[in-house]
Amino acid sequence: MNQIRKPATADVTHGPLPASTKIYIAGETLGDTRVPMRQIHVHESAGEPPLTVYDTSGVYTDPEASFDIERGLKRLRTGWIEARGDTELYDGRAAKPEDNGNVAGDRLVPEFPVANRPRRGKSGVASVSQLAYARQGMITPEMEFVAIRENLLREIAPEEAAKLKAEAERWGADIPDVVTPEFVRAEVARGRAIIPANVNHPETEPMCIGRNFLVKINANIGNSAVTSSVADEVDKMVWAIRWGADTVMDLSTGRNIHNIREWIIRNAPVPIGTVPIYQALEKVDRAEDLTWAIYRDTLIEQCEQGVDYFTIHAGIRLRHIHLTADRVTGIVSRGGSIISQWCLAHHRESFLYENFEEICEIMASYDVSFSLGDGFRPGCGADANDAAQFAELETLGELTRVAWEKGCQVMVEGPGHVPMHKIKVNMEKQLALCGEAPFYTLGPLVTDIAPGYDHITSGIGAAMIGWYGTAMLCYVTPKEHLGLPDRDDVKEGCITYKIAAHAADLAKGHPGAAARDDALSRARFQFRWEDQFNLSLDPDRARDFHDQTLPKEAHKTAHFCSMCGPKFCSMEITNLVRDYAKAGMEEMSNKFRAEGAELYKESYTAHQVEQDGEAGAAPAKE
Amino acid sequence: MNQIRKPATADVTHGPLPASTKIYIAGETLGDTRVPMRQIHVHESAGEPPLTVYDTSGVYTDPEASFDIERGLKRLRTGWIEARGDTELYDGRAAKPEDNGNVAGDRLVPEFPVANRPRRGKSGVASVSQLAYARQGMITPEMEFVAIRENLLREIAPEEAAKLKAEAERWGADIPDVVTPEFVRAEVARGRAIIPANVNHPETEPMCIGRNFLVKINANIGNSAVTSSVADEVDKMVWAIRWGADTVMDLSTGRNIHNIREWIIRNAPVPIGTVPIYQALEKVDRAEDLTWAIYRDTLIEQCEQGVDYFTIHAGIRLRHIHLTADRVTGIVSRGGSIISQWCLAHHRESFLYENFEEICEIMASYDVSFSLGDGFRPGCGADANDAAQFAELETLGELTRVAWEKGCQVMVEGPGHVPMHKIKVNMEKQLALCGEAPFYTLGPLVTDIAPGYDHITSGIGAAMIGWYGTAMLCYVTPKEHLGLPDRDDVKEGCITYKIAAHAADLAKGHPGAAARDDALSRARFQFRWEDQFNLSLDPDRARDFHDQTLPKEAHKTAHFCSMCGPKFCSMEITNLVRDYAKAGMEEMSNKFRAEGAELYKESYTAHQVEQDGEAGAAPAKE
Repeated sequence: MNQIRKPATADVTHGPLPASTKIYIAGETLGDTRVPMRQIHVHESAGEPPLTVYDTSGVYTDPEASFDIERGLKRLRTGWIEARGDTELYDGRAAKPEDNGNVAGDRLVPEFPVANRPRRGKSGVASVSQLAYARQGMITPEMEFVAIRENLLREIAPEEAAKLKAEAERWGADIPDVVTPEFVRAEVARGRAIIPANVNHPETEPMCIGRNFLVKINANIGNSAVTSSVADEVDKMVWAIRWGADTVMDLSTGRNIHNIREWIIRNAPVPIGTVPIYQALEKVDRAEDLTWAIYRDTLIEQCEQGVDYFTIHAGIRLRHIHLTADRVTGIVSRGGSIISQWCLAHHRESFLYENFEEICEIMASYDVSFSLGDGFRPGCGADANDAAQFAELETLGELTRVAWEKGCQVMVEGPGHVPMHKIKVNMEKQLALCGEAPFYTLGPLVTDIAPGYDHITSGIGAAMIGWYGTAMLCYVTPKEHLGLPDRDDVKEGCITYKIAAHAADLAKGHPGAAARDDALSRARFQFRWEDQFNLSLDPDRARDFHDQTLPKEAHKTAHFCSMCGPKFCSMEITNLVRDYAKAGMEEMSNKFRAEGAELYKESYTAHQVEQDGEAGAAPAKE
Repeated sequence: MNQIRKPATADVTHGPLPASTKIYIAGETLGDTRVPMRQIHVHESAGEPPLTVYDTSGVYTDPEASFDIERGLKRLRTGWIEARGDTELYDGRAAKPEDNGNVAGDRLVPEFPVANRPRRGKSGVASVSQLAYARQGMITPEMEFVAIRENLLREIAPEEAAKLKAEAERWGADIPDVVTPEFVRAEVARGRAIIPANVNHPETEPMCIGRNFLVKINANIGNSAVTSSVADEVDKMVWAIRWGADTVMDLSTGRNIHNIREWIIRNAPVPIGTVPIYQALEKVDRAEDLTWAIYRDTLIEQCEQGVDYFTIHAGIRLRHIHLTADRVTGIVSRGGSIISQWCLAHHRESFLYENFEEICEIMASYDVSFSLGDGFRPGCGADANDAAQFAELETLGELTRVAWEKGCQVMVEGPGHVPMHKIKVNMEKQLALCGEAPFYTLGPLVTDIAPGYDHITSGIGAAMIGWYGTAMLCYVTPKEHLGLPDRDDVKEGCITYKIAAHAADLAKGHPGAAARDDALSRARFQFRWEDQFNLSLDPDRARDFHDQTLPKEAHKTAHFCSMCGPKFCSMEITNLVRDYAKAGMEEMSNKFRAEGAELYKESYTAHQVEQDGEAGAAPAKE
């Protein structure tokens, strides 16, 4: 095996997205920290202001800023955390050889160069979570940051907001016209939103997950069997957030887990999630050798490093395991299968379930959020919505309440593989059983017949369940079920899920969500090709696809595209029609009226259509 | 410009799909003609019969058969058509230089080598359409062919069919357990399904489009500015049907339209659709120079060649054009913009609307089906469901009834760009206004912000509207809005739309649709990698993606995939769990019961979950 190369900051993807400027918005309680957004500039001929979009990409897309992966990001939340006065620095757990799979020498990934003493809640402080503060009525800087971030500088007229709300179907979501810090606090307080923000990950730019906010996406990354360099591992995270990942889960198995994770967290401006049982299993030979002590120690290890949320499969009950026996694909969750195997081998409830309160206490003292794992999620459409799945969901509801009582932030994981007609009930049950705690689903894939295209099979389900109320969508890449995603797959997965999340925002009538669609549509209609590329989710691909047919620079402002050619362009014709119509409308109207009012009676008026649309009724026939 | 190369049959894609055999099923009224299907063989260890799937790919995937694009396909319906005795051969319209854009010499695509005299309904026969026969109570061989084809040899137990129906949400669709020829006749008779089958395209393998049948997909192709060879043009069609296109629309503009179309039709086993106004426009300089005479002549030209359905934008009324003036993207349909321009220039109703009855009479005498065009379909989410769109839909409803009266088969085109919450009302209005005539939609795209990924933005909408009742989904490729699709784009579009159509079939509880999902899921669970590849929509990509990580042949039967690796595989663990669970279930159950019945009361039983799922209710809390 090769020697692991030294980290090289220059190897990490950086540089702005096309025509984009990073802007930073100050808050009232944020101190020096400001909220990053991206502004996309359009051609001056449009006479439009730049479009402000949500920006997860951190310092890496700011050409004015510098970064050094050997030093890590600025620890922007440290002042806020310290000011709360309820945490303390302490001598953390000493790293052990098994944390990195007992590798040494050339095969050991180097330690992160900067050592930070870990922080935790002071003795006697039950919880230092955003939930605990919210319940106390405290609006933290994290909450103000989130409020500013979610608004994207939007200014929406009350009438416009009312129209959006009337047209939309929100399935019970309660989306405000403008997000206030108090709104964020209230949503966090009642458990309907979380702000994953470990006190040991002060580098995060706070974000929130909840169905009354913008729908978020998660990208999974994992280490390679042969790690060529630390920069490559950091770059996986940087690459995912460049394309819009709101959080990143590090699902590494094998060696060097501890050290790689440290490099990732120290350079991550987004919350990092893990599944601690994966690392715990690396420390033993077989699933049945796992113990509470090993697992607990792994939790502490990761809490101290700054992981922001843990997937914990505590919802698996011994008594429910047999419900999976007749499934077509049994248990497909890795964590679920490990825990099930342990439970059956020992014939007892899992150490996760039995020690759930202590797990809560640990997580509350670092503000690590729960992502309650769905170990029995269906692995195929045939197993969707079955007894095993819903039995576990009911348990997750119980655990949600326990965790809330202990001051922990909670989201709940969901499927998986579900045909379209069985998706909605998943959302309804989750809301009812888990007290509206945010739902975090993997897809779901709406059919099983398209390996190689499961970003699409799952993107369909993700868009739908996002509309119904899922707060965060875990991406699926084209390699799902087949192999390890490469760089292209990660990007394809991120873009597909940004599409799904945004489609959900639109369908919920999220104020401001349509601004990007409208700006891009105007650019399309006005043949502003450069603006079309720049406003799109993937400017590089849009430009590349266009240039494959019409590569010349002159064509970028041509009043046609290669679909129709210069002689024959429907949009160009429409411009003519518009001129005709505008000039002739009054004349025509007068003429029609002269010919008899019946002509107008037959046709729809804009007003009638709106009414029909709102009521969802069949159109009036006159 | 290069000289056009001679046709070369060998250049056309051919050969079977992996592990697949073509089978042919005889009928009672089909004579020598038999119904093609594809059977995918699975490894003998599975102990399963081969899976039968719908097959649109024609002779090109049958290694036992030969084909010659210079002779064209076998004219399998000729005997059926002649036996009906209501058509006659006649001397057709002579080809004119303008049919091919006045090209000559080296730049003229050669004529198809075999001349066929055209056929039409005899004088005094109002309609030779499948609709006319269906109304007369006649079950044609085409209808029997369709019935056999739709069933895919399925054998479904009544209880299973009843369960599917109970679980599904069909939105009013009435899908039979088994499709009988009489069911096909009845659906065609009431206009709820069409069998596009021009008497001059006897090469078609009959298929039907209707919401009580499998959801179909259409692929668009068009000629290139520089045509390198006729084989390339034929191959575009062959490539699309290889990946599942049920019909193909030839949207060519420019030169050589007539001759290329002839080559395509003579070699097409699927219905071919066109938009005749495109060719008509090629024959004049400007839209306003179009005349009814030129258009009518073009219709006859294409009827005689064997086009199976025409998109006709007769729904555009002069009085409605101004409704598009304030749209964000105006009129984006090419046909719609041409007709609108004509109407405004002449200040009168279009020649399509004014001569609609004569158009019907022409089409009825060849059995060309209508695809009533939605010239005012929205070109962006902001314009969705507006007054212009629904005014036209109302007109399309009127025209549907006129066409039915004239004995024509009809489907109705739909949008376009529609955010998710505005999709359903499109289907509801179309059903109500157009008397349940099949709906044929383009997507719809659920957001406008992802050029380069519009197969995905539209695939989401297509799956949903397919579920709601759309009978055929017109594909969108990744190049939409950006450029001309290449071979890879056509395949990507087809597979994406096969996913959408199949997801819709599943959600409608189509009997037999889940068989493929289940077979692939079993293969996945049992680590039958080859079977997973072969059962998938795109075996080539599935295999390629797998082999990128684990290329060795031995790994094809390995009990793990590269996602987890050999030590750590959830499916492998599940197999252990299953063994444990099965062995221990009775013992465990006894133990739990001994510990107190409360334990079981708390948990879901399979029966309860089923009831909850069916009712869509919140789960019972005990």
